[in-house]
Amino acid sequence: MAFSFHSRFFKTETITLADTTEQIIRGGRDQSCLLKKAFAGIKQIGVIGWGSQAQAQAQNLRDSLKDTGVTVKVGLRKDSPSLNKARALNFTEETNTLGEMHKTIKESDMVLLLISDAAQVKHHEEIFCSLKPGSTLGLSHGFLLGYFANNNIKPPDNINIIGVCPKGMGDAVRTLYVQGQHTCGVGINTSFAVHQDSDGRATDQAIGWSVALGAPVSFFTTLTAEYKSDIFGERAILLGAVYGIVEALFRHFTTHDNMPEETAFRLTADSITGPLSRLISRSGLPAVYESLTPNEKETFIKMYTAAYAPAYALLLEIYDEVSSGNELRSVILASHRQKDFPLCRADGSRVWQVGQQTRHWRVDDKIPLHPATAGLYVGIMMAQVDLLLAKGHSYSEVCTESVIEAVDSINPHMHAMGATHMFNHCSFTAQAGVRKWGPRFDHLMHHQILPTFLDHTRPPKEAAASFINHQIHQPLGVCLSLR
Amino acid sequence: MAFSFHSRFFKTETITLADTTEQIIRGGRDQSCLLKKAFAGIKQIGVIGWGSQAQAQAQNLRDSLKDTGVTVKVGLRKDSPSLNKARALNFTEETNTLGEMHKTIKESDMVLLLISDAAQVKHHEEIFCSLKPGSTLGLSHGFLLGYFANNNIKPPDNINIIGVCPKGMGDAVRTLYVQGQHTCGVGINTSFAVHQDSDGRATDQAIGWSVALGAPVSFFTTLTAEYKSDIFGERAILLGAVYGIVEALFRHFTTHDNMPEETAFRLTADSITGPLSRLISRSGLPAVYESLTPNEKETFIKMYTAAYAPAYALLLEIYDEVSSGNELRSVILASHRQKDFPLCRADGSRVWQVGQQTRHWRVDDKIPLHPATAGLYVGIMMAQVDLLLAKGHSYSEVCTESVIEAVDSINPHMHAMGATHMFNHCSFTAQAGVRKWGPRFDHLMHHQILPTFLDHTRPPKEAAASFINHQIHQPLGVCLSLR
Repeated sequence: MAFSFHSRFFKTETITLADTTEQIIRGGRDQSCLLKKAFAGIKQIGVIGWGSQAQAQAQNLRDSLKDTGVTVKVGLRKDSPSLNKARALNFTEETNTLGEMHKTIKESDMVLLLISDAAQVKHHEEIFCSLKPGSTLGLSHGFLLGYFANNNIKPPDNINIIGVCPKGMGDAVRTLYVQGQHTCGVGINTSFAVHQDSDGRATDQAIGWSVALGAPVSFFTTLTAEYKSDIFGERAILLGAVYGIVEALFRHFTTHDNMPEETAFRLTADSITGPLSRLISRSGLPAVYESLTPNEKETFIKMYTAAYAPAYALLLEIYDEVSSGNELRSVILASHRQKDFPLCRADGSRVWQVGQQTRHWRVDDKIPLHPATAGLYVGIMMAQVDLLLAKGHSYSEVCTESVIEAVDSINPHMHAMGATHMFNHCSFTAQAGVRKWGPRFDHLMHHQILPTFLDHTRPPKEAAASFINHQIHQPLGVCLSLR
Repeated sequence: MAFSFHSRFFKTETITLADTTEQIIRGGRDQSCLLKKAFAGIKQIGVIGWGSQAQAQAQNLRDSLKDTGVTVKVGLRKDSPSLNKARALNFTEETNTLGEMHKTIKESDMVLLLISDAAQVKHHEEIFCSLKPGSTLGLSHGFLLGYFANNNIKPPDNINIIGVCPKGMGDAVRTLYVQGQHTCGVGINTSFAVHQDSDGRATDQAIGWSVALGAPVSFFTTLTAEYKSDIFGERAILLGAVYGIVEALFRHFTTHDNMPEETAFRLTADSITGPLSRLISRSGLPAVYESLTPNEKETFIKMYTAAYAPAYALLLEIYDEVSSGNELRSVILASHRQKDFPLCRADGSRVWQVGQQTRHWRVDDKIPLHPATAGLYVGIMMAQVDLLLAKGHSYSEVCTESVIEAVDSINPHMHAMGATHMFNHCSFTAQAGVRKWGPRFDHLMHHQILPTFLDHTRPPKEAAASFINHQIHQPLGVCLSLR
């Protein structure tokens, strides 16, 4: 896989990540001049949809492009319940910044399609019919192109197709942009991709879009690599694995170790989403190990070793399902069932009830970093890192999808709002993934990881060293420094 | 779906199942004369493979066809470790009843392809090259044709393609045939199908094969319907659901109800595979309800009602995955991973260890029929019945795949050998299915079924009546009487 691109207007910078180099783009405010060049010929950007990404992106783009002559217009279904919400944020029919979805698509020179994956699949024919020849289609996710690849559908070749994928949730894309007005970088890092370049402008349009969103750093990728790592990631360490780890470990602590339920919740869910994530975010992965006492280090490595190999096999299964197209078809089938058969509950078991009840009297500084929990979580995370590297993903993508998005975005959000809030409010694609793969991680824990952890064999001596000396720590350090 | 066929030689009988009629064929010994006619032109039947189905079928066919002039020859890979096992059962090179697989295929007029699903998919090109024009390919499972349908592969049209699918495990196909030598029917019922009839003989060849296996009754189906209900069934009530029910209910009984582990195993796994299955097999489904005390009836219906709707939704997901081809692709992907990453353990959790330890001092007559366990199992079974009927499967197929195969074949086998033995020794396709869907049933129990069961709302008054008066009981009674 080649990780290089050519921009006519934006200055690129080269970073060294382990044994590779990658080009990146630095963002920041006051880039109106560059954005004008990147968006030359673009009078109107249509932002289609009003999910949290669409809301955030529409506002950031409007703010960033206010001096460039580019209008940002939100396009929604005629009867969309979101129309009033858009009006409340000053996207209005009167100012021609709010309109019907297909009309908006027809008028716009660049269309950012931010409706749900399932809706993109369902409506792609009309949408492609509405797109102007010579216009640019922007995606924040490669799902639709994965669907096209699986079904031998070719999009029209008279448009550009680009992707900009913020590495965090929509809320954060907006909040950090607002908070960061006076810093150099002002929001969330992205990866950008050029899928189809019909007029030679696609790369600069993609970078322009990313910079206008406020990305401090934009990494280069392909939409194929992106959707694989993205859909895979949310089924794995970002959501599915956390779900399964917490279910299984809570049950283990309460039944095998007779721990009170509140304590067990603190030492599992709260420990991961709180102190463990903060420590990794601030100081990287080896810092977790270094922060432990000698006894705790032993526990950490024992669980890490018990988890790594079985987790790798399950992660490989997930990756196979995603890259074969099975997972996309599953999501589409689930979306067809959704009206009559909504996704099953993910918050009915004891652990999440305890979490809801006890979150309110939690004292954040007093949540301990539990070495078994940490060993398990980091073991699965490292298995994911190794798998994505083996599959040829770039270091920046591996660091972002396996570590940074977890510890900077998803986990803090779960810590603040409760994990069950996340499992019920993330995208439909992710919700379906949690329900499908979360129980598999839970099962793996009970049948393979915990029995190994509990038996009396010691992990191999080199286990700690191979973790501490892993090739990912340098690239992760670089990527963490780029926020 | 049309459920009728035309046989030139065998006498058909019509049975009434609810609002439909189906034609069936009665089997029995001493049908040499009919078999000679059905197999006219067939000098040699090649049985390819040495799994439990292949062993059983090769022996039954040899015995049934001994006066017809048809040779039954086993075909195996040159270096197959099964060669000696076949020789030990008197399939030998000297008598020209044992040979290399492709050579055997080339020589045979009828080839029964009984190697694993994954091996069929892997080797189908060479196999189809080896088949003689005008010969007949027999399958005991529709997996390969499902794979063909998904990949737009057309088998050559100068052969017959037929299916005969015994409704029980290979061991039973042979054992019952031997035991039943002097009864009318002598073995396990089958369904048969004609997928491609190039010379007008396919239907009688299929029936002949089924009769020669010793099927007391042969039901008609299509290979498409068969593989869907079969692959679906083993992921659902036959294996996956039992696995999930036992995991979840054992955990519930031991933690929520503080039951001793041994008691919990008796009241879950043992109760299902022992008394519950025997009662259904002997007396049908309503007998389960009727056998309970008034209080137990209430518990049964409460759990039945809590389980039915969520189980229906999960079963529909499984059905969608199977009929979209996703599940077949998953199995094939798993078979590719198998060498480096074997399927994960399914017997590592507490419940199966307890089962292994306590099975030996179990007193069979003293295993109680627990009303919550029964309500759960029967609730999921009835959801499966309703789903398969809604998807257009014939009553005989629904009764067989949802009830009879469970209570007559799979459950008694698990009762005798231990459930974990089954989960580790069934076909690779089934093993992969248990590991994929078992945890989903477990999860559904904890998040949806048990919380509903434990809350204080009463099930609707008509719940018991709608179960007792369900349309399946008459067809099930007929099918049970046909064993």
